[in-house]
Amino acid sequence: MHKQISSPHNAAIKRLLQLQDKSRNRRKEGVFVVEGIRETGLAIKGGFDLMEIYFCPELFPAEELSTLTEKCQIQPKIVEISSEVYNKIAYRGSTEGIIAVFKGKTTALESLKFSSENPLILVAEAPEKPGNIGALLRTADAARLDAVLIANPKTDLFNPNIIRSSVGGVFTNNVATGSTAEIISFLQRQNIKIYAAALQSSKIYAQVDFTQSAAIVVGTEATGLSREWLENSTQNIIIPMSGEIDSMNVSVAAGILVFEAKRQRGFRL
Amino acid sequence: MHKQISSPHNAAIKRLLQLQDKSRNRRKEGVFVVEGIRETGLAIKGGFDLMEIYFCPELFPAEELSTLTEKCQIQPKIVEISSEVYNKIAYRGSTEGIIAVFKGKTTALESLKFSSENPLILVAEAPEKPGNIGALLRTADAARLDAVLIANPKTDLFNPNIIRSSVGGVFTNNVATGSTAEIISFLQRQNIKIYAAALQSSKIYAQVDFTQSAAIVVGTEATGLSREWLENSTQNIIIPMSGEIDSMNVSVAAGILVFEAKRQRGFRL
Repeated sequence: MHKQISSPHNAAIKRLLQLQDKSRNRRKEGVFVVEGIRETGLAIKGGFDLMEIYFCPELFPAEELSTLTEKCQIQPKIVEISSEVYNKIAYRGSTEGIIAVFKGKTTALESLKFSSENPLILVAEAPEKPGNIGALLRTADAARLDAVLIANPKTDLFNPNIIRSSVGGVFTNNVATGSTAEIISFLQRQNIKIYAAALQSSKIYAQVDFTQSAAIVVGTEATGLSREWLENSTQNIIIPMSGEIDSMNVSVAAGILVFEAKRQRGFRL
Repeated sequence: MHKQISSPHNAAIKRLLQLQDKSRNRRKEGVFVVEGIRETGLAIKGGFDLMEIYFCPELFPAEELSTLTEKCQIQPKIVEISSEVYNKIAYRGSTEGIIAVFKGKTTALESLKFSSENPLILVAEAPEKPGNIGALLRTADAARLDAVLIANPKTDLFNPNIIRSSVGGVFTNNVATGSTAEIISFLQRQNIKIYAAALQSSKIYAQVDFTQSAAIVVGTEATGLSREWLENSTQNIIIPMSGEIDSMNVSVAAGILVFEAKRQRGFRL
């Protein structure tokens, strides 16, 4: 039988809440928390080790656990929780009855392996809003980019808001993080051209050839890209804007650039 | 001298709060509330009548009011408010010291006039999240689309979250709303081709000619477009997706489609 927890004051539940809330706690334990059936499935598929699973039997029948976990390499610890406990730890409105704890994987640049001869990569420098990061990861998933690199990340990637807004895209992409300097050096070593979204000496994005190894680099809406990117850019690119407002949403801009590259590549993988 | 309000319990302040919160109150009075200098400026520029302006002198010096309102057709009522009042009505973190009340304009389809011979239009059916609507409006502003049509709107367009997330794009675009049936009939009367983002019998979006009068139509992420659109579509279009997740963010998808049309049109206005 499973372990059962019915009190929201149980120490194990307090730990889960802390893991959701605090990047520091996730880092210390080397784990992160996932909510929802689909996201849990994508994390397993993405090769993350499922360590613990908390299920609320009123919402998620115990018999379905085996289907969810059948592809796991190691058998996770399974804990049955009461509705009261579930409602305390689950995101508001969430009704799937599943909370999972996964072991983190490295997001080191060196861990990336490209199977494509001409990789297409998206780099986002210091993105702030989880919603934007989530949208970037969904776009990258749809485009099956070779990697998504987060330069100077403001938060760990496995924070619950990013997991949620990426609909699990944080697990389906090859994601790595590093400082801007590290990522530039990584791209240069791999002979990947750098196309920085920046106004100075720029070309219209649709006039640039993205069919060779290419990294499309976007900055924040407020401050754009740092000087280092501009100094190391193969070619700056812009999306022509003719309105009253001088910036687009960063994840929309990234989507336009990435899919122009995909178009030029005939949407091939 | 201006009228002054220093108590957050003042009836005028309660009214403002209600106007921010409740679509029904906005509709009843025929007004909406705007926060921030830039957004207020864009609403004035967009031809909306500024009726009332509330300023907090610690944050917004009285002498700058005349610059802000110099292009107004009618002189607005000006009210000085205390920091305490400002903090009560302003969005958290907002520090610009300005709250404005504008008279609404019609969003009727019949009010639209196209100066372009081959208008390019974005239609969004029943978009839900203010953040997505805001991003759509920013994209439409950047592309200087001929119109943005919201079919079966779930909220009035002038709710504070949409104004904020569109960075004022709700004022810079030609926006109209209507039922799906009304919008389809409007587009057909104007001989505007309907390109519905939907899988059935679709073509890859980049293989479609968007250089003639075109409406790009996107649905919700959860349920897509309603049957009426599919029955009246000139051609369904899709963005090829090759990942694990089966949907992109709706405002990203719209951005990709709109800018492919712009690319085909040589980014001309």
